[in-house]
Amino acid sequence: MEFSMTRTVEVLSATPAAVRGLLGGLSGEWTASASREDWGPFDVVGHLIHAEHTDWIPRARVIVEQGEDRTFPQFDRSGHFALVEGKSLAQLLDEFDAARRQSIDTLAGWNLTDDQLNLQGLHPEFGPVTLRQLLSTWPVHDLTHLRQVATSMAKRYDGAVGPWKEYLSILK
Amino acid sequence: MEFSMTRTVEVLSATPAAVRGLLGGLSGEWTASASREDWGPFDVVGHLIHAEHTDWIPRARVIVEQGEDRTFPQFDRSGHFALVEGKSLAQLLDEFDAARRQSIDTLAGWNLTDDQLNLQGLHPEFGPVTLRQLLSTWPVHDLTHLRQVATSMAKRYDGAVGPWKEYLSILK
Repeated sequence: MEFSMTRTVEVLSATPAAVRGLLGGLSGEWTASASREDWGPFDVVGHLIHAEHTDWIPRARVIVEQGEDRTFPQFDRSGHFALVEGKSLAQLLDEFDAARRQSIDTLAGWNLTDDQLNLQGLHPEFGPVTLRQLLSTWPVHDLTHLRQVATSMAKRYDGAVGPWKEYLSILK
Repeated sequence: MEFSMTRTVEVLSATPAAVRGLLGGLSGEWTASASREDWGPFDVVGHLIHAEHTDWIPRARVIVEQGEDRTFPQFDRSGHFALVEGKSLAQLLDEFDAARRQSIDTLAGWNLTDDQLNLQGLHPEFGPVTLRQLLSTWPVHDLTHLRQVATSMAKRYDGAVGPWKEYLSILK
């Protein structure tokens, strides 16, 4: 499927509702992280908020503005730990919702043309990428983390399912 | 994590909202199936409805009632194709919501004791399983299919993300 702005924004708009629908009513046993390396849903939502603030729109802005230095700012994969400290999951779900709305508003305000979507920025690791590729990656990143949330939750019932484990690919 | 009825029902209650949040506003390009074998979100929701009708509660009832024959009815993995025919995704999301509510009501009405949770039924393929294991498998099955939905959607942007593909485990 080819990139389209409409379809991209459809997914970007859906993710906060999907995450809230899944996690909003769960107890901490489903959502807490096992460790700083093994993120549960709580840290995943923190990571998604952090990416709204420091990754997607800031990188898109580097491309849209086409300034002297088009290298993206580095993204800190541990950057959300400070952001989530002392907060409840309910607070994080609200923050993600608000941050995502603001991102989508910014994106809509740019009224990007096809020519602008072909403009490039420099990824600090793999070099030149287009705005179109960056914006395609954003919803896929959402889906990757939705998948991570589902997997993290499922594994908590790994022992409880007994012989069904054989049939559940998510537990492999 | 050990099985608990409360935690199990938390996830069972969350899934329809999660699925609706994710899929409710998407165009068919994100949700259609590629083929009868390669299910997109549309067929996954159909499968979840079909399992409400013919799998979880019917099997649990076989155990709860402890009749002469405790072998579970077979579950037809293609059984949803008839159910979804001619329907919109919006209709299926409503049907899943209603069917799941009814399942949870039935479950709550049974007021299951610990002793009942230890009762067994006979899986047609792998033999004796407890009610506790069946009820643990139900939310994990939800999460497996939520993961499948996320994966199926992400793969549609496989080419669009360009060099980011290397970093996105969901596309591997």
